[in-house]
Amino acid sequence: MTAYARLATLGITLPPVTAPVAAFVPWVRSGDLLFLSGHIARAKGAVVAGRLGDTMTTAEGAAAARSVAIDLLGTLHAATGDLTRVRQIVKLMVLVNSSLAFTEQHLVANGASELLVSVFGDRGAHARSAFGVAQVPLGSCVEIDLIAELDREP
Amino acid sequence: MTAYARLATLGITLPPVTAPVAAFVPWVRSGDLLFLSGHIARAKGAVVAGRLGDTMTTAEGAAAARSVAIDLLGTLHAATGDLTRVRQIVKLMVLVNSSLAFTEQHLVANGASELLVSVFGDRGAHARSAFGVAQVPLGSCVEIDLIAELDREP
Amino acid sequence: MTAYARLATLGITLPPVTAPVAAFVPWVRSGDLLFLSGHIARAKGAVVAGRLGDTMTTAEGAAAARSVAIDLLGTLHAATGDLTRVRQIVKLMVLVNSSLAFTEQHLVANGASELLVSVFGDRGAHARSAFGVAQVPLGSCVEIDLIAELDREP
Repeated sequence: MTAYARLATLGITLPPVTAPVAAFVPWVRSGDLLFLSGHIARAKGAVVAGRLGDTMTTAEGAAAARSVAIDLLGTLHAATGDLTRVRQIVKLMVLVNSSLAFTEQHLVANGASELLVSVFGDRGAHARSAFGVAQVPLGSCVEIDLIAELDREP
Repeated sequence: MTAYARLATLGITLPPVTAPVAAFVPWVRSGDLLFLSGHIARAKGAVVAGRLGDTMTTAEGAAAARSVAIDLLGTLHAATGDLTRVRQIVKLMVLVNSSLAFTEQHLVANGASELLVSVFGDRGAHARSAFGVAQVPLGSCVEIDLIAELDREP
Repeated sequence: MTAYARLATLGITLPPVTAPVAAFVPWVRSGDLLFLSGHIARAKGAVVAGRLGDTMTTAEGAAAARSVAIDLLGTLHAATGDLTRVRQIVKLMVLVNSSLAFTEQHLVANGASELLVSVFGDRGAHARSAFGVAQVPLGSCVEIDLIAELDREP
Protein backbone atom coordinates (compact mmCIF):
# COMPACT_ATOMS: atom_id res chain seq x y z
CA MET A 1 0.00 0.00 0.00
CA THR A 2 1.54 3.29 -1.02
CA ALA A 3 1.63 6.43 1.09
CA TYR A 4 -1.01 7.93 -1.21
CA ALA A 5 -3.33 4.92 -0.74
CA ARG A 6 -2.93 5.19 3.02
CA LEU A 7 -3.68 8.92 2.88
CA ALA A 8 -6.85 8.17 0.88
CA THR A 9 -7.88 5.55 3.44
CA LEU A 10 -7.38 8.13 6.18
CA GLY A 11 -9.45 10.64 4.21
CA ILE A 12 -6.54 13.07 4.06
CA THR A 13 -6.06 15.45 1.15
CA LEU A 14 -2.57 16.93 1.00
CA PRO A 15 -2.49 20.72 1.15
CA PRO A 16 -0.27 22.86 -1.07
CA VAL A 17 2.89 24.24 0.51
CA THR A 18 2.20 27.24 2.72
CA ALA A 19 4.48 30.14 1.82
CA PRO A 20 6.96 30.76 4.64
CA VAL A 21 6.05 33.73 6.83
CA ALA A 22 9.60 35.05 6.58
CA ALA A 23 12.93 35.03 4.73
CA PHE A 24 13.48 31.31 4.32
CA VAL A 25 12.44 28.44 2.05
CA PRO A 26 10.21 25.46 2.91
CA TRP A 27 12.93 22.87 2.29
CA VAL A 28 16.53 22.31 1.26
CA ARG A 29 17.93 19.04 -0.08
CA SER A 30 21.53 18.07 0.65
CA GLY A 31 22.65 14.71 -0.68
CA ASP A 32 20.04 12.15 0.32
CA LEU A 33 18.73 14.31 3.17
CA LEU A 34 15.81 16.71 2.89
CA PHE A 35 15.53 19.36 5.61
CA LEU A 36 12.04 20.82 6.08
CA SER A 37 11.58 24.18 7.80
CA GLY A 38 9.60 24.45 11.01
CA HIS A 39 5.88 24.28 10.19
CA ILE A 40 3.41 25.95 12.54
CA ALA A 41 -0.19 24.84 13.15
CA ARG A 42 -2.84 26.17 10.78
CA ALA A 43 -6.53 25.47 10.27
CA LYS A 44 -8.16 26.81 7.09
CA GLY A 45 -5.19 29.12 6.66
CA ALA A 46 -5.37 30.69 10.14
CA VAL A 47 -2.70 30.01 12.75
CA VAL A 48 -3.86 27.77 15.61
CA ALA A 49 -2.64 29.86 18.52
CA GLY A 50 -2.61 28.54 22.07
CA ARG A 51 -0.52 27.31 24.96
CA LEU A 52 -0.63 23.75 26.28
CA GLY A 53 -1.36 23.58 29.97
CA ASP A 54 -3.09 26.93 29.72
CA THR A 55 -5.54 27.46 26.84
CA MET A 56 -5.32 24.00 25.22
CA THR A 57 -5.60 20.38 26.36
CA THR A 58 -3.16 17.61 25.46
CA ALA A 59 -5.74 16.11 23.09
CA GLU A 60 -6.19 19.44 21.32
CA GLY A 61 -2.40 19.79 21.08
CA ALA A 62 -2.06 16.30 19.61
CA ALA A 63 -4.73 17.13 17.02
CA ALA A 64 -2.80 20.28 16.10
CA ALA A 65 0.44 18.28 15.84
CA ARG A 66 -1.35 15.83 13.52
CA SER A 67 -2.47 18.73 11.32
CA VAL A 68 1.12 20.02 11.18
CA ALA A 69 2.25 16.54 10.08
CA ILE A 70 -0.29 16.69 7.24
CA ASP A 71 1.17 20.03 6.18
CA LEU A 72 4.67 18.51 6.38
CA LEU A 73 3.45 15.70 4.09
CA GLY A 74 2.17 18.32 1.66
CA THR A 75 5.61 19.92 1.66
CA LEU A 76 7.31 16.51 1.28
CA HIS A 77 5.08 15.82 -1.72
CA ALA A 78 5.95 19.18 -3.27
CA ALA A 79 9.67 18.69 -2.58
CA THR A 80 9.89 15.17 -3.98
CA GLY A 81 7.15 15.13 -6.61
CA ASP A 82 6.33 11.64 -5.32
CA LEU A 83 6.12 10.50 -1.69
CA THR A 84 7.33 7.03 -2.68
CA ARG A 85 10.77 8.66 -2.99
CA VAL A 86 10.80 9.11 0.80
CA ARG A 87 13.02 6.26 1.98
CA GLN A 88 12.79 7.14 5.68
CA ILE A 89 11.49 9.83 7.99
CA VAL A 90 14.72 10.41 9.95
CA LYS A 91 14.08 13.00 12.64
CA LEU A 92 11.34 15.22 14.01
CA MET A 93 11.81 18.21 16.31
CA VAL A 94 8.50 19.05 17.99
CA LEU A 95 8.22 22.37 19.82
CA VAL A 96 5.21 22.69 22.08
CA ASN A 97 4.05 26.11 23.24
CA SER A 98 3.89 25.18 26.95
CA SER A 99 3.02 26.59 30.31
CA LEU A 100 5.74 26.08 32.90
CA ALA A 101 3.73 23.23 34.44
CA PHE A 102 2.87 21.27 31.28
CA THR A 103 4.93 18.07 30.92
CA GLU A 104 3.09 16.06 28.23
CA GLN A 105 4.97 17.34 25.19
CA HIS A 106 5.62 13.72 24.18
CA LEU A 107 1.86 13.02 24.01
CA VAL A 108 1.25 16.15 21.97
CA ALA A 109 4.05 15.13 19.59
CA ASN A 110 2.49 11.68 19.16
CA GLY A 111 -0.23 13.33 17.10
CA ALA A 112 2.39 13.92 14.41
CA SER A 113 4.46 10.77 14.94
CA GLU A 114 1.53 8.37 14.75
CA LEU A 115 0.26 9.90 11.53
CA LEU A 116 3.66 9.53 9.87
CA VAL A 117 3.81 5.86 10.86
CA SER A 118 0.23 5.37 9.58
CA VAL A 119 1.19 6.82 6.22
CA PHE A 120 4.70 5.42 5.72
CA GLY A 121 4.74 2.25 7.88
CA ASP A 122 8.28 1.31 8.96
CA ARG A 123 9.68 4.04 6.73
CA GLY A 124 7.78 6.50 8.96
CA ALA A 125 9.41 5.40 12.24
CA HIS A 126 11.67 8.29 13.23
CA ALA A 127 13.98 9.65 15.90
CA ARG A 128 12.43 12.57 17.74
CA SER A 129 12.95 15.35 20.25
CA ALA A 130 9.95 17.07 21.81
CA PHE A 131 10.05 19.85 24.38
CA GLY A 132 8.21 22.87 25.71
CA VAL A 133 9.08 26.34 24.47
CA ALA A 134 8.25 29.82 25.75
CA GLN A 135 6.60 30.87 22.49
CA VAL A 136 6.26 30.02 18.81
CA PRO A 137 5.98 32.47 15.88
CA LEU A 138 2.48 33.97 15.61
CA GLY A 139 1.55 32.25 18.88
CA SER A 140 1.15 28.82 17.22
CA CYS A 141 0.57 26.01 19.71
CA VAL A 142 3.04 23.69 17.99
CA GLU A 143 5.95 23.91 15.54
CA ILE A 144 7.55 20.88 13.89
CA ASP A 145 10.56 20.48 11.62
CA LEU A 146 11.60 17.28 9.90
CA ILE A 147 14.55 15.55 8.24
CA ALA A 148 13.80 12.85 5.66
CA GLU A 149 16.04 10.56 3.64
CA LEU A 150 15.15 10.35 -0.05
CA ASP A 151 15.97 7.86 -2.75
CA ARG A 152 19.05 8.78 -4.74
CA GLU A 153 18.37 11.07 -7.67
CA PRO A 154 18.00 8.89 -10.78
CA MET B 1 42.66 3.10 24.66
CA THR B 2 39.21 2.17 23.39
CA ALA B 3 35.95 3.78 24.43
CA TYR B 4 35.15 0.64 26.43
CA ALA B 5 38.47 0.80 28.30
CA ARG B 6 37.85 4.46 29.12
CA LEU B 7 34.35 3.64 30.36
CA ALA B 8 35.80 0.91 32.59
CA THR B 9 38.38 3.37 33.95
CA LEU B 10 35.55 5.78 34.74
CA GLY B 11 33.62 2.98 36.44
CA ILE B 12 30.71 3.38 34.03
CA THR B 13 28.50 0.46 33.02
CA LEU B 14 26.44 1.14 29.93
CA PRO B 15 22.69 0.82 30.46
CA PRO B 16 20.35 -0.90 28.02
CA VAL B 17 18.31 1.34 25.75
CA THR B 18 15.32 2.86 27.52
CA ALA B 19 12.15 2.30 25.54
CA PRO B 20 10.88 5.62 24.17
CA VAL B 21 7.96 7.07 26.15
CA ALA B 22 6.04 7.68 22.95
CA ALA B 23 5.59 6.90 19.25
CA PHE B 24 9.15 7.14 18.04
CA VAL B 25 12.33 5.05 17.87
CA PRO B 26 15.60 5.58 19.78
CA TRP B 27 17.70 6.12 16.65
CA VAL B 28 17.66 6.26 12.86
CA ARG B 29 20.71 5.81 10.65
CA SER B 30 20.95 7.68 7.36
CA GLY B 31 24.15 7.16 5.38
CA ASP B 32 27.05 7.67 7.77
CA LEU B 33 24.96 9.73 10.20
CA LEU B 34 23.16 8.31 13.21
CA PHE B 35 20.40 10.47 14.70
CA LEU B 36 19.57 9.71 18.35
CA SER B 37 16.23 10.77 19.83
CA GLY B 38 16.09 13.21 22.72
CA HIS B 39 17.00 11.37 25.94
CA ILE B 40 15.62 12.66 29.23
CA ALA B 41 17.33 12.33 32.65
CA ARG B 42 16.68 9.14 34.60
CA ALA B 43 18.08 7.67 37.80
CA LYS B 44 17.30 4.01 38.54
CA GLY B 45 14.53 4.17 35.96
CA ALA B 46 12.76 7.21 37.45
CA VAL B 47 12.75 10.56 35.65
CA VAL B 48 14.94 13.22 37.27
CA ALA B 49 12.45 16.07 37.34
CA GLY B 50 13.47 19.62 38.20
CA ARG B 51 14.09 23.12 36.96
CA LEU B 52 17.48 24.78 36.92
CA GLY B 53 17.53 28.11 38.73
CA ASP B 54 14.58 26.94 40.80
CA THR B 55 14.71 23.42 42.28
CA MET B 56 18.19 22.41 41.05
CA THR B 57 21.71 23.85 41.11
CA THR B 58 24.03 24.07 38.14
CA ALA B 59 26.16 21.25 39.59
CA GLU B 60 23.10 19.03 39.96
CA GLY B 61 22.08 19.84 36.41
CA ALA B 62 25.56 19.00 35.10
CA ALA B 63 25.43 15.65 36.92
CA ALA B 64 22.06 14.95 35.32
CA ALA B 65 23.43 15.90 31.89
CA ARG B 66 26.35 13.49 32.48
CA SER B 67 23.87 10.72 33.26
CA VAL B 68 21.96 11.47 30.06
CA ALA B 69 25.25 11.19 28.15
CA ILE B 70 25.78 7.74 29.67
CA ASP B 71 22.31 6.74 28.46
CA LEU B 72 23.16 8.15 25.01
CA LEU B 73 26.31 5.99 25.04
CA GLY B 74 24.16 2.96 25.88
CA THR B 75 21.96 3.77 22.89
CA LEU B 76 25.02 4.33 20.67
CA HIS B 77 26.34 0.93 21.73
CA ALA B 78 23.00 -0.72 20.94
CA ALA B 79 22.74 1.06 17.59
CA THR B 80 26.28 0.27 16.43
CA GLY B 81 27.00 -3.02 18.17
CA ASP B 82 30.47 -1.59 18.82
CA LEU B 83 31.36 1.93 19.97
CA THR B 84 34.62 1.79 18.01
CA ARG B 85 32.42 2.29 14.92
CA VAL B 86 31.69 5.83 16.12
CA ARG B 87 33.98 7.96 13.97
CA GLN B 88 32.88 11.29 15.47
CA ILE B 89 30.31 12.78 17.80
CA VAL B 90 29.01 15.48 15.47
CA LYS B 91 26.37 17.53 17.28
CA LEU B 92 24.59 17.74 20.61
CA MET B 93 21.40 19.68 21.33
CA VAL B 94 21.06 20.20 25.08
CA LEU B 95 17.71 21.43 26.42
CA VAL B 96 17.79 22.65 29.98
CA ASN B 97 14.54 22.98 31.95
CA SER B 98 15.22 26.56 33.10
CA SER B 99 13.74 29.32 35.18
CA LEU B 100 13.54 32.64 33.34
CA ALA B 101 16.58 33.87 35.29
CA PHE B 102 18.91 30.88 34.82
CA THR B 103 21.70 31.54 32.30
CA GLU B 104 24.20 28.71 32.89
CA GLN B 105 22.82 26.21 30.38
CA HIS B 106 26.34 25.91 28.91
CA LEU B 107 27.73 24.75 32.27
CA VAL B 108 24.92 22.22 32.69
CA ALA B 109 25.59 20.92 29.17
CA ASN B 110 29.29 20.50 29.98
CA GLY B 111 28.34 17.54 32.15
CA ALA B 112 27.47 15.68 28.96
CA SER B 113 30.13 17.19 26.70
CA GLU B 114 33.04 16.47 29.03
CA LEU B 115 32.02 12.84 29.46
CA LEU B 116 31.88 12.32 25.68
CA VAL B 117 35.37 13.77 25.31
CA SER B 118 36.61 11.57 28.19
CA VAL B 119 35.26 8.48 26.47
CA PHE B 120 36.04 9.21 22.82
CA GLY B 121 38.97 11.65 22.97
CA ASP B 122 39.18 13.83 19.85
CA ARG B 123 36.40 11.79 18.25
CA GLY B 124 34.17 13.03 21.08
CA ALA B 125 34.70 16.76 20.40
CA HIS B 126 31.39 17.98 19.02
CA ALA B 127 29.43 21.01 17.88
CA ARG B 128 26.70 21.94 20.33
CA SER B 129 23.70 24.10 21.04
CA ALA B 130 22.44 24.49 24.60
CA PHE B 131 19.52 26.61 25.72
CA GLY B 132 16.78 26.96 28.32
CA VAL B 133 13.31 25.58 27.63
CA ALA B 134 9.96 26.11 29.34
CA GLN B 135 9.47 22.41 30.05
CA VAL B 136 10.65 18.92 29.10
CA PRO B 137 8.51 15.74 28.83
CA LEU B 138 7.69 14.28 32.25
CA GLY B 139 9.31 17.31 33.87
CA SER B 140 12.86 16.07 33.23
CA CYS B 141 15.53 18.64 34.12
CA VAL B 142 17.50 18.00 30.91
CA GLU B 143 16.94 16.51 27.46
CA ILE B 144 19.74 15.81 24.98
CA ASP B 145 19.76 14.58 21.42
CA LEU B 146 22.84 13.67 19.41
CA ILE B 147 24.12 13.16 15.88
CA ALA B 148 27.10 10.85 15.37
CA GLU B 149 29.10 9.87 12.32
CA LEU B 150 29.74 6.14 11.98
CA ASP B 151 32.23 4.13 10.00
CA ARG B 152 30.91 3.03 6.64
CA GLU B 153 29.02 -0.23 6.69
CA PRO B 154 31.47 -3.00 5.77
CA MET C 1 29.95 38.48 -7.34
CA THR C 2 31.59 36.39 -4.63
CA ALA C 3 30.53 36.23 -1.02
CA TYR C 4 33.59 38.29 -0.11
CA ALA C 5 32.68 41.00 -2.64
CA ARG C 6 29.15 41.14 -1.25
CA LEU C 7 30.52 41.41 2.29
CA ALA C 8 32.74 44.28 1.20
CA THR C 9 29.77 46.02 -0.43
CA LEU C 10 27.86 45.64 2.84
CA GLY C 11 30.84 47.06 4.76
CA ILE C 12 31.15 43.86 6.81
CA THR C 13 34.48 42.65 8.14
CA LEU C 14 34.43 39.01 9.22
CA PRO C 15 35.38 38.48 12.85
CA PRO C 16 37.68 35.69 14.05
CA VAL C 17 36.04 32.65 15.60
CA THR C 18 34.97 33.27 19.18
CA ALA C 19 36.23 30.54 21.49
CA PRO C 20 33.31 28.45 22.75
CA VAL C 21 32.27 29.31 26.30
CA ALA C 22 32.27 25.62 27.21
CA ALA C 23 33.41 22.08 26.37
CA PHE C 24 32.60 21.94 22.68
CA VAL C 25 34.09 22.98 19.34
CA PRO C 26 32.83 25.68 16.95
CA TRP C 27 32.14 23.26 14.09
CA VAL C 28 32.31 19.63 12.97
CA ARG C 29 32.36 18.48 9.36
CA SER C 30 30.74 15.19 8.39
CA GLY C 31 30.82 14.31 4.71
CA ASP C 32 29.60 17.35 2.80
CA LEU C 33 27.79 18.79 5.82
CA LEU C 34 29.28 21.30 8.22
CA PHE C 35 27.55 21.64 11.60
CA LEU C 36 28.16 24.95 13.40
CA SER C 37 27.62 25.24 17.14
CA GLY C 38 25.05 27.64 18.53
CA HIS C 39 26.45 31.18 18.40
CA ILE C 40 25.16 33.74 20.90
CA ALA C 41 24.92 37.50 20.31
CA ARG C 42 28.01 39.58 21.03
CA ALA C 43 28.96 43.21 20.48
CA LYS C 44 32.64 44.15 20.90
CA GLY C 45 33.18 40.89 22.74
CA ALA C 46 30.41 41.39 25.31
CA VAL C 47 27.27 39.27 25.26
CA VAL C 48 24.13 41.11 24.11
CA ALA C 49 21.79 40.07 26.91
CA GLY C 50 18.08 40.74 26.76
CA ARG C 51 14.62 39.29 26.33
CA LEU C 52 12.38 40.03 23.38
CA GLY C 53 8.98 41.34 24.39
CA ASP C 54 10.50 42.58 27.61
CA THR C 55 13.81 44.48 27.42
CA MET C 56 14.28 44.45 23.62
CA THR C 57 12.21 45.35 20.57
CA THR C 58 11.78 43.19 17.49
CA ALA C 59 14.04 45.54 15.52
CA GLU C 60 16.76 45.29 18.16
CA GLY C 61 16.42 41.50 18.12
CA ALA C 62 16.70 41.39 14.34
CA ALA C 63 19.86 43.51 14.54
CA ALA C 64 21.29 41.10 17.10
CA ALA C 65 20.38 38.12 14.87
CA ARG C 66 22.14 39.84 11.97
CA SER C 67 25.27 40.23 14.11
CA VAL C 68 25.12 36.53 15.03
CA ALA C 69 24.93 35.70 11.32
CA ILE C 70 28.10 37.75 10.76
CA ASP C 71 29.81 35.72 13.49
CA LEU C 72 28.54 32.51 11.84
CA LEU C 73 30.08 33.72 8.57
CA GLY C 74 33.38 34.28 10.40
CA THR C 75 33.22 30.71 11.65
CA LEU C 76 32.27 29.42 8.17
CA HIS C 77 35.29 31.25 6.75
CA ALA C 78 37.56 29.72 9.39
CA ALA C 79 36.12 26.25 8.87
CA THR C 80 36.34 26.28 5.08
CA GLY C 81 39.29 28.56 4.43
CA ASP C 82 37.22 30.00 1.60
CA LEU C 83 33.52 30.90 1.65
CA THR C 84 33.22 30.00 -2.04
CA ARG C 85 33.37 26.38 -0.86
CA VAL C 86 29.93 26.86 0.74
CA ARG C 87 27.59 25.22 -1.75
CA GLN C 88 24.42 25.89 0.25
CA ILE C 89 23.26 27.18 3.60
CA VAL C 90 21.01 24.23 4.51
CA LYS C 91 19.35 24.93 7.85
CA LEU C 92 19.21 27.54 10.58
CA MET C 93 17.83 27.05 14.09
CA VAL C 94 17.10 30.44 15.65
CA LEU C 95 16.41 30.57 19.39
CA VAL C 96 14.93 33.82 20.61
CA ASN C 97 15.04 34.69 24.32
CA SER C 98 11.34 35.53 24.59
CA SER C 99 8.74 36.72 27.02
CA LEU C 100 5.66 34.50 27.14
CA ALA C 101 3.75 37.06 25.08
CA PHE C 102 6.29 37.67 22.30
CA THR C 103 5.33 36.01 18.99
CA GLU C 104 7.60 37.67 16.41
CA GLN C 105 10.50 35.20 16.53
CA HIS C 106 10.26 34.88 12.74
CA LEU C 107 10.89 38.61 12.30
CA VAL C 108 13.84 38.50 14.68
CA ALA C 109 15.27 35.53 12.78
CA ASN C 110 14.93 37.43 9.49
CA GLY C 111 17.85 39.59 10.60
CA ALA C 112 20.08 36.53 10.15
CA SER C 113 18.29 34.98 7.17
CA GLU C 114 18.28 38.14 5.07
CA LEU C 115 21.99 38.70 5.61
CA LEU C 116 22.83 35.16 4.49
CA VAL C 117 20.79 35.64 1.30
CA SER C 118 22.50 39.01 0.72
CA VAL C 119 25.90 37.39 0.98
CA PHE C 120 25.32 34.05 -0.78
CA GLY C 121 22.38 34.75 -3.10
CA ASP C 122 20.45 31.56 -3.93
CA ARG C 123 23.09 29.49 -2.14
CA GLY C 124 22.06 31.36 1.02
CA ALA C 125 18.36 30.41 0.88
CA HIS C 126 17.86 27.97 3.75
CA ALA C 127 15.33 25.93 5.68
CA ARG C 128 14.73 27.36 9.15
CA SER C 129 13.10 26.88 12.51
CA ALA C 130 12.68 29.84 14.86
CA PHE C 131 11.05 29.78 18.27
CA GLY C 132 11.02 31.41 21.68
CA VAL C 133 13.05 29.91 24.52
CA ALA C 134 13.01 30.49 28.28
CA GLN C 135 16.68 31.48 28.41
CA VAL C 136 19.95 31.37 26.48
CA PRO C 137 23.47 30.88 27.92
CA LEU C 138 24.80 34.09 29.51
CA GLY C 139 21.41 35.71 28.96
CA SER C 140 22.03 36.30 25.25
CA CYS C 141 18.96 37.60 23.41
CA VAL C 142 19.46 35.20 20.48
CA GLU C 143 21.31 31.96 19.70
CA ILE C 144 21.66 30.52 16.20
CA ASP C 145 23.14 27.29 14.89
CA LEU C 146 23.61 26.41 11.24
CA ILE C 147 24.14 23.48 8.87
CA ALA C 148 25.91 24.17 5.57
CA GLU C 149 26.74 21.98 2.60
CA LEU C 150 30.29 22.32 1.33
CA ASP C 151 31.95 21.43 -1.93
CA ARG C 152 33.54 17.99 -1.88
CA GLU C 153 37.10 17.95 -0.60
CA PRO C 154 39.42 18.12 -3.61
